[in-house]
This record gives sequence, C-alpha cells and structure tokens, in this order.
Amino acid sequence: MEKKHMVGFIGLGVMGKPMSKNLIKAGYPLVVYDLIGSKMSELVSIGAEGAGSPKDVSKKCEIIITMVPDSPEVEIAVLGENGVIEGVKEGAIVIDMSSINPFTTRKAGEALAKKGVEMLDAPVSGGEEGAIKGELAIMVGGKEEIFKKSLPLFKSMGKSITYVGELGGGEMMKLVNQLIVAVNIAALSEAFMLGAKAGLSAQTMFQALRGGLAGSKVMETKVPRFVERNFAPGFKIDLHIKDLKNALTAAQELKVPVPFASLVGQVMLALSNKGKGANDHGGMVEFWEDIAGGKVK
Amino acid sequence: MEKKHMVGFIGLGVMGKPMSKNLIKAGYPLVVYDLIGSKMSELVSIGAEGAGSPKDVSKKCEIIITMVPDSPEVEIAVLGENGVIEGVKEGAIVIDMSSINPFTTRKAGEALAKKGVEMLDAPVSGGEEGAIKGELAIMVGGKEEIFKKSLPLFKSMGKSITYVGELGGGEMMKLVNQLIVAVNIAALSEAFMLGAKAGLSAQTMFQALRGGLAGSKVMETKVPRFVERNFAPGFKIDLHIKDLKNALTAAQELKVPVPFASLVGQVMLALSNKGKGANDHGGMVEFWEDIAGGKVK
Repeated sequence: MEKKHMVGFIGLGVMGKPMSKNLIKAGYPLVVYDLIGSKMSELVSIGAEGAGSPKDVSKKCEIIITMVPDSPEVEIAVLGENGVIEGVKEGAIVIDMSSINPFTTRKAGEALAKKGVEMLDAPVSGGEEGAIKGELAIMVGGKEEIFKKSLPLFKSMGKSITYVGELGGGEMMKLVNQLIVAVNIAALSEAFMLGAKAGLSAQTMFQALRGGLAGSKVMETKVPRFVERNFAPGFKIDLHIKDLKNALTAAQELKVPVPFASLVGQVMLALSNKGKGANDHGGMVEFWEDIAGGKVK
Repeated sequence: MEKKHMVGFIGLGVMGKPMSKNLIKAGYPLVVYDLIGSKMSELVSIGAEGAGSPKDVSKKCEIIITMVPDSPEVEIAVLGENGVIEGVKEGAIVIDMSSINPFTTRKAGEALAKKGVEMLDAPVSGGEEGAIKGELAIMVGGKEEIFKKSLPLFKSMGKSITYVGELGGGEMMKLVNQLIVAVNIAALSEAFMLGAKAGLSAQTMFQALRGGLAGSKVMETKVPRFVERNFAPGFKIDLHIKDLKNALTAAQELKVPVPFASLVGQVMLALSNKGKGANDHGGMVEFWEDIAGGKVK
C-alpha cells in the first residue's frame, strides 16, 4: 500500500487511538472518526483530518479501518445509516480490526463485495500496551492478495502478522485463542485453589509444575499475579465475557458443542456480577477463592 | 543413603520394572515383589532377590518403595495382611511412588509413624519412557531430612526432583498437575474443533497461537498428535480418569468445588465407554469430533 493513499480510522478508543497514532507516525495521511467527537481532537492536533460520520470517512479514503467494541457497532459503522457502505468507493478496502463474531464479518464482507469493495478482518491481541508500542499480534482473514497489499499498514501497528485464510478467519482465530486462554486460566485457578487448600504455596506449585506438561504462557503470566494479588488489567474479565459470547454464537452457528467455553463464561459472569468485571482475567482465581474459602498465594 | 542399604521394591508394572532396573544399575541391592510372581523373574535374573510378600520385603530392607496402581493397592501393600507394616523395622523409610489420593498417603504415614517408620510420598511424571531413561520428574512430600537422605535414590530414577513439603504434598502436587493438564487438553480440543469447523487447519491455528497467551506445553505436544492422528499412549485416558477421581476425592475432603475437573472427568469417561480408554489423553479431541461431527486436522 503506497503511503499517499488516504487511510480512514473509525473508533478511537483505548486501542484505536494508539493504533491510529502509529499510522500517522508511519506517514499515512489519516481521516479519523469517533462517535464521541472530543476523541478526535488529539488525533487532529497531530495531523489527522476529522470526519463527520463513517460515510464521510469512506468518501475520502481508499482504505478504511474500523476498531470498535463489538459486532453491533461494526454493523452500525459499516452497514448502518451514514455508514461506510454509503460513501465507499469501488476498489477500496475495508479492514475491521475489532474483535467480533465472524458471521457479522462475513455479512459485512458480502455487502461490501456488492459495491466492489474488498474486506479483511484483522483482530489483534496484545492490549493497550501492544497498541502503543506498535507490537500487536494481528490475525488476518480475507483474500491473500489484499492481505499482501495491506501488509505495510499492519506492520506499522503490529509485530506478529499472521495470514489465516478466508474472510472471518481472523475473527475465528481470535475466538479460538480467547477460548483456550479463558479455560487455561480456569484450570490454573481451580487446580491452584485445590493445592492451596492442601497447604501448597502458589510459588511451590509454580516451581514444581512450570517445566512439565502443565506449563503454559497462562501459568507464566498469571501465577505472579496470584502471588502479588495484582488483578489490575491487563485484559478485563468483561472484555473476555464479550469474546466468549461471540465464541458461543459462532459455535452455535457451526453446531459445535462447547461445554468448557460455556462453563468458563458462567464463572466470568458471576465475577462480573460481584463487581470484578474490570479486573484482569487472571482475577478469575477469585471465583474459586470465594466458593472454596481461602486464598491462592 | 549409603548404597549398602537394602532397598525393597513392590510393584513391577510398566513403571516399577524400569525404575527398579535403574536402582540395580545404580548399585543398590534390591529385594523385589509383585502380586504376579512371573514379573519378578526378569529382575531376579539381573541380580535382585525375589520376596514372597510385602511383609517379606519389609523384613529385609531399610527402604521400601511401593509403585502400584492406585490408593486401594497402596493400602493393601502397606497396611494389609502380609503388608509392609507387619514386617517393617523401626527406623526404616517407606517411599510410595504411586499416584494416589493424598489422604490414603497420610493414613499410611500415620500408621507407619506408630512403628517408628518414616514415610515419603513421591509420585512421578514422565511415563514409561521417563522411567526407562531414568528421567522422571519426582514430586516429594514428607520430612525434609528424610527427603535429603533419600535423594541419591531418587536421582537414580529421575532427573527433576522437587521437595514440596509435608507428607501427602507430592500426591497433591501430582493431582494439581493432572487437573491442569486434563483441562488444558480439553480447552485445546474444544477450541480447535470450533476453528476446524470454521475452516481453519490445525497447523494454521498452531502457528498463529503457539507464541501467544494461548501457548502451552499441552499445545506443543498434543497438536502434532491431532495432525498425525496419533493417539497411541503416551499417557492413557483411563489412567487420567483415575487421577481425576483422586483429585475429586481430595477436593471433596478439602471442600473445594472443582467444576472443570468434574467436567473433564465426564468427557474422559465418555471416551472410555466408547473403547478409547487406552488412547493417549491427547485423544480427548475425539470427544469433540464425535459430538460436533468433523475432524481437527
């Protein structure tokens, strides 16, 4: 993608703001939009052009990126009134980097295809810190030639960029990732609670188990949080609930029974109900501490 | 432990046979016993002395190792008629290396303590291959001074030897390990089935996810099995069912709710009922393949 192409960025939240800043840093001329007008001012002050609607963005740009909270917001921004689809030019590329239900992705892709517009889905992992540092992991679905064309753009926001196949594949990969992570945290929490009640310290369990088959990235990153009682996000339980909801919706569409994803979603819902939804998902251990009585430490 | 001390070894199965061979290789004079007499002959042919009962073993030895299938067998071998407790000498050490319920361990430990006999629990992981190579991971509970005295013995059978605290702690650590491993395999299987149904190959998912927060030893070792359809054990589902049963028993005693361990136990039971109990626990993916219809590959 040549840098003279005008890039649009819709959604300037916790993730979208640092991602759009990195695009400006990389030399892309940027048109930005957010429902909350004040969010645009910081970007405008460093050279971006503000727009009045997603439609307005799409009129001006060859590439339009969306980074919004969930599937309904993608539908509104892309397919809704004054949405991208109303202004977008033939030959343009729409890249949705939100984490949403892959069936919404495909619905948007089909609508855009009728206008001669290509779509990629490119959800990210790595959180706010990864977004600020330009070190996000980005999983991309869509036509490979469109992926290749867009690669320089991705490289200005992320470090590990993986092409995973057809449109919706990026979202699906993200859901697979989130399902594994959620259940691995639950396994760790439940097992460490059992050990803790039997008198084993979290540190002793960590040292004895990390090198064996029970070892995982989740163990490496979450046990220190248990020990330090540090449940500041990180990745919030409420966001993980959203991802699991999308995983369950996709699983229902594909008729795949997902008992573990269902169960872990219920654990997180219970935590959210207790006012813990803004905690890091490593705080899932507090569910077991609550129902077993005790602390993993 | 000086090498002239007579060591007894009770239980010459898949694990016990190679472990006792390694003790002979390391120069320990060995007395062996197995319920099935013919299992002793191979050991006798390389220098071990055969015994007629656990009691007979314990009369002759300063250290008695048990390596039997489950908690009831430990109770029979140690506390039963013609068991270790009937012949054991004051000052001897009993080391149970079986994977059992830690409450049985403590019961045996208390009975032995009344005779002035010390006990360690030292379950292993690493399977038959680890036992043959003398590279087992050994998790040891009991008095630290007795652990230190027994360390040379453990070193002739294992590579990573961890002291975890009081008697029963080794068994509890093993259960914590087995719980995490079982649920991590379930998470991987369920998530990969969802991805597979959406058209993602196991290899693509593996490459996209292994470096991130979903990465784990379970992913590294089991995905290649999915891809190659290789469910030869390894570690059998039926053995994992036994470990989960012991984890649930321990959890009940400690009043720790373990919904994920319960659920994964039911998945494995269903597989065992379908004749898959002798498969590697990585074959858990076949549960999802069966209920979703399709293959993870």
